[in-house]
Amino acid sequence: MIKIGIAGYGNLGRGVECAIKNTPDMELIAVFTRRDPASVQILTKDIPVVSSDLSIQWKDKIDVMILCGGSATDLPTATPAFVEMFNVVDSFDNHAKIPAHFSNVDAAAKKHAHLALIAAGWDPGLFSVNRLYGNVFLPGGKDYTFWGKGVSQGHSDAIRRIDGVKNAKQYTIPVQSALHSVRSGSDPELTTDQKHTRECFVVLEKGANASAIKHQIKTMPNYFADYNTTVHFISEEEFSKNHTGMAHGGFVIRSGRTGVNKEHSHIIEYNLKLDSNPEFTASVLVAYARAVYRMANEGIHGCKTVLDVPPSYLSEKSGDELRATLL
Amino acid sequence: MIKIGIAGYGNLGRGVECAIKNTPDMELIAVFTRRDPASVQILTKDIPVVSSDLSIQWKDKIDVMILCGGSATDLPTATPAFVEMFNVVDSFDNHAKIPAHFSNVDAAAKKHAHLALIAAGWDPGLFSVNRLYGNVFLPGGKDYTFWGKGVSQGHSDAIRRIDGVKNAKQYTIPVQSALHSVRSGSDPELTTDQKHTRECFVVLEKGANASAIKHQIKTMPNYFADYNTTVHFISEEEFSKNHTGMAHGGFVIRSGRTGVNKEHSHIIEYNLKLDSNPEFTASVLVAYARAVYRMANEGIHGCKTVLDVPPSYLSEKSGDELRATLL
Repeated sequence: MIKIGIAGYGNLGRGVECAIKNTPDMELIAVFTRRDPASVQILTKDIPVVSSDLSIQWKDKIDVMILCGGSATDLPTATPAFVEMFNVVDSFDNHAKIPAHFSNVDAAAKKHAHLALIAAGWDPGLFSVNRLYGNVFLPGGKDYTFWGKGVSQGHSDAIRRIDGVKNAKQYTIPVQSALHSVRSGSDPELTTDQKHTRECFVVLEKGANASAIKHQIKTMPNYFADYNTTVHFISEEEFSKNHTGMAHGGFVIRSGRTGVNKEHSHIIEYNLKLDSNPEFTASVLVAYARAVYRMANEGIHGCKTVLDVPPSYLSEKSGDELRATLL
Repeated sequence: MIKIGIAGYGNLGRGVECAIKNTPDMELIAVFTRRDPASVQILTKDIPVVSSDLSIQWKDKIDVMILCGGSATDLPTATPAFVEMFNVVDSFDNHAKIPAHFSNVDAAAKKHAHLALIAAGWDPGLFSVNRLYGNVFLPGGKDYTFWGKGVSQGHSDAIRRIDGVKNAKQYTIPVQSALHSVRSGSDPELTTDQKHTRECFVVLEKGANASAIKHQIKTMPNYFADYNTTVHFISEEEFSKNHTGMAHGGFVIRSGRTGVNKEHSHIIEYNLKLDSNPEFTASVLVAYARAVYRMANEGIHGCKTVLDVPPSYLSEKSGDELRATLL
């Protein structure tokens, strides 16, 4: 049994806890929190909730710590700190800052002879693996990544900061005609705004000026001004009923050509349709925790990403079983 | 530069030759054939065509030999024989016989301190990797593989063996309603014949009995009797004009559920639309040859499959570059 710790208990941490219940080769040892442990109710009976400050006491009791904090403020410091004590997996998702995070985590992990796997999840994560596969199997081709339909947290927050807005959710939606044109192999040049539209569901404060707020959203630079944006004003009841889900998904498509005169066109498509973004991300983290456990047992230290992990390390099955059943 | 040899020069070998022309970190050293080398015209100038019998003389001049023979009669003996002299990649595609082939190749490779990667291509190959990823990220879910639209060589051959048939091509076509039902997350139970229909284009010998042959095709056990099969009789001209292509493709779909009460449904889909089955397979072989070269240089011996290869080993880019651009 692989002994797992969870550090951080929000949607993602709960997702990891659920996933471990369905994973016969893993057991949850403890949940670590920066809140008062007494205030944290978890799903699994008889598993301790421990203050993060006491993590060091669990150093030899946990094989892999799954870090479930956020990328903006938690993980940049938490991952290098935890990897001093444990092998770790995180879902750091700020693409631009991955090289810096990698370098910090790699130094700490090597110093303490631990293994870290960062940026696991679906993007970065499975989408990254598929972008890489697309690039190597169709060199000289073109990459397309579409996101959605799903909630963009950053865009939802931007709307909520507007005066007079009580609550808001923004969905990023792939443009079907753009998807069709990519799938046809016509290799279109597409800007992000040609690939996605933005749909906003907004609950107003009493007495707020709807038309002024709609204008403010649609013209907001960086976030909405360059997009085809739709704004719906809805009641709080409707918001609670229809807009608290965490569905998401997306598409990675590679198009490329082969042949003496590049006369043959090929399309590779990978797509995800997810009812729960955090629970699926959690499933990915748990599978990569298994790989980290194995690689660490082989003496591999430092920082790795999903691009460095042989697929077979993710499975509890033996090589013989995998070759006989899945290959 | 990685030094590549090609053993076998049919559609697949020519595809590998094309792919290497577009691969800056590889060079083609020689093509090996069991035919009279003087009778084999290749695309690349100034590259020798050599009798397979003389392969041993090239032992130290080639980093990876890409084996482009067929799975039925060539590869079962060719791969163990070549791995005594070279690191090799093959596209062995008889799923049921992979464990036996693996075991033969592994023994020969270990004895001679070489590395072999077998069963590369798209199925087995990329589809296998995606079946594995689907299984580990959505444990307890369901797998679906659809093939086509594309030519089935075995079914085309079966028709050609009928008396009175001059030429024939059989296309395997995924049933759209079955695909839709899988994508909806309804987890249908589908037999192979519910997932695929078969469409046959047949050129008759002069004086052949069309309706008797149609009946013979549609009732042929194992091949057609259990399927929705359509038979078209066409002229030789139409056959040459419209039915000599080698397009193929398919879909690997995994559906599964997460959550405390399995309340959230998720769909992972991978699909390929290929204008040229052999050229795309060749592209995959070439990328895995790069991985074999690297792994062999690290001292790894024996037999491996696509499931054992870290994605990053397939790319000529460094880890830093990959993390900055693709992750």
